[in-house]
Amino acid sequence: MTTIEEFQKDREKLNDLVLDFGGKSIKRFYNLDNQVYQEGALTGATKELIGLVASLVLRCDDCVAYHILQCRDAGITDGQLEEALSIGLVVGGSITIPHLRRAVEKWNELKGEEGT
Amino acid sequence: MTTIEEFQKDREKLNDLVLDFGGKSIKRFYNLDNQVYQEGALTGATKELIGLVASLVLRCDDCVAYHILQCRDAGITDGQLEEALSIGLVVGGSITIPHLRRAVEKWNELKGEEGT
Amino acid sequence: MTTIEEFQKDREKLNDLVLDFGGKSIKRFYNLDNQVYQEGALTGATKELIGLVASLVLRCDDCVAYHILQCRDAGITDGQLEEALSIGLVVGGSITIPHLRRAVEKWNELKGEEGT
Amino acid sequence: MTTIEEFQKDREKLNDLVLDFGGKSIKRFYNLDNQVYQEGALTGATKELIGLVASLVLRCDDCVAYHILQCRDAGITDGQLEEALSIGLVVGGSITIPHLRRAVEKWNELKGEEGT
Amino acid sequence: MTTIEEFQKDREKLNDLVLDFGGKSIKRFYNLDNQVYQEGALTGATKELIGLVASLVLRCDDCVAYHILQCRDAGITDGQLEEALSIGLVVGGSITIPHLRRAVEKWNELKGEEGT
Amino acid sequence: MTTIEEFQKDREKLNDLVLDFGGKSIKRFYNLDNQVYQEGALTGATKELIGLVASLVLRCDDCVAYHILQCRDAGITDGQLEEALSIGLVVGGSITIPHLRRAVEKWNELKGEEGT
Repeated sequence: MTTIEEFQKDREKLNDLVLDFGGKSIKRFYNLDNQVYQEGALTGATKELIGLVASLVLRCDDCVAYHILQCRDAGITDGQLEEALSIGLVVGGSITIPHLRRAVEKWNELKGEEGT
Repeated sequence: MTTIEEFQKDREKLNDLVLDFGGKSIKRFYNLDNQVYQEGALTGATKELIGLVASLVLRCDDCVAYHILQCRDAGITDGQLEEALSIGLVVGGSITIPHLRRAVEKWNELKGEEGT
Repeated sequence: MTTIEEFQKDREKLNDLVLDFGGKSIKRFYNLDNQVYQEGALTGATKELIGLVASLVLRCDDCVAYHILQCRDAGITDGQLEEALSIGLVVGGSITIPHLRRAVEKWNELKGEEGT
Repeated sequence: MTTIEEFQKDREKLNDLVLDFGGKSIKRFYNLDNQVYQEGALTGATKELIGLVASLVLRCDDCVAYHILQCRDAGITDGQLEEALSIGLVVGGSITIPHLRRAVEKWNELKGEEGT
Repeated sequence: MTTIEEFQKDREKLNDLVLDFGGKSIKRFYNLDNQVYQEGALTGATKELIGLVASLVLRCDDCVAYHILQCRDAGITDGQLEEALSIGLVVGGSITIPHLRRAVEKWNELKGEEGT
Repeated sequence: MTTIEEFQKDREKLNDLVLDFGGKSIKRFYNLDNQVYQEGALTGATKELIGLVASLVLRCDDCVAYHILQCRDAGITDGQLEEALSIGLVVGGSITIPHLRRAVEKWNELKGEEGT
């Protein structure tokens, strides 16, 4: 398994490649992608949960891993995460289970780090 | 355009058909589908927003219409809805725009009812 | 609601348009699409159930309606259909429910015809 | 069937609702969505074909109808359209056929208008 | 390549994590997911084929691998598997081919084990 | 990371397994999949770009990698690729970004080979 740390480094390195390669449209998309998760009428924490469940039902491991990290940083609790993931599971069905497994694994890994 | 009221009546009538037809598994699934949106560590309002965005990125008009109704009943504001839908648009891309259009149309319809 | 009969007529008329418009590749695809449902190591009935559930989890109403018809013609029973649709519901999640509703509605319509 | 003209009017009216309702992020997304189809290293016609096939494999009727119109305006020929749609059919499978049917129907409708 | 044995061990370990982490809804979903594949009006073998093709068209490698194993245990023959996968390929299109490749690879691996 | 060369070898080896295992329908599908990318009313290069963007919005890494290779062989320029990928990103949303990252990485790898 890739650790969260390796995942983050790889993600950043490749995002740099994309921004080097990309023109205005891709750069603007990246900005927009950052903008919609900013605190506003909804808290940043709620937005990360929304992003997480959207990623789960669309079954994207990298997006799930990223939002799991963001949820941790936004102070989401175990109970909140569990309820959000349950919605994702029911909406998206058993086909999301492999991604749910890896989401919980990542969450446990992050909590293990905190424990140390 | 189907009005929200027609949509609700049609939805209930057909859900009754499904529950008449379905055995234990389908009934249990319906219960579970109800259960995960109950108030808990997350508020019912947050859960409806999560359900709405999951429905938008999966591009299901009926599910979007249903959660738009639930969001209204849960007291979601214009600003909160706008921010949640923006996340859905960015995550799911321009392919979600036809559904975003119908989501906003439904929201406006519900607010028009209140206005009268 | 479109009746099954209207659906079939519309479907055939438009398939003719596609085959008039399409070149070799499209015609070959249509042949292949016909071929894979032919009786073989699996019965035609089993193949229709497979096609139905694949259509349900991919959430295509027209494809679901078509396979519901084929299942009826292949002699699928209520119990068999219910179990197949239950698998589709669990695999595909609550996002398939609007399609499940219309599947059951079509099935009931067909059985109503038989009753008369 | 909705005519292309009705479709366009409805689409514009609802897009206005979305832009009235939406904040900065939604407006920026709409701009970006316009920008990526502008003539550049690829011709506008090629970009419309790409948008059309992306819409077909993602099975969005409204997006397919829109790009069919744009393809006509960009001077795409019958043969070019047929080849692009064939790629979409093979990549996306038989589940795209209902959308392919409506794409060809719309294309024929547009050509009928020209004929008059 | 991960062997089937490694895949199974990893899958079980992570499912335990999910069930430890999950509340009632997730546990009920897991039960339901088990329940719908039980022998009934349809044989367990038919249900596994349905689950396999649903997994293929939704393009989930882990789900495909799991149902390949279940199909073997249910006594599915080469011919039956080939016909089911052909339906999946035609319904889901060429985008399923990478998953089809890994499905056949897993099937061959299982038959190799039996051969020894 | 798997190199492009390893990817190609693995892909060919597994395609051989599929064709050994598959009957007429699978073989015909493979032929059709080859046929639709042949030069015709559209150039081979345009068809590869269409295939690439279809693969990106459907989020299939293996398909993206394959069409990246084909685009290079068809003489697609950096600017053309960038514009095609931008359409894919806007149509498919941020959920395509992990695949976009790997697409650009593969493209850079191919250009690195040429540089040597």
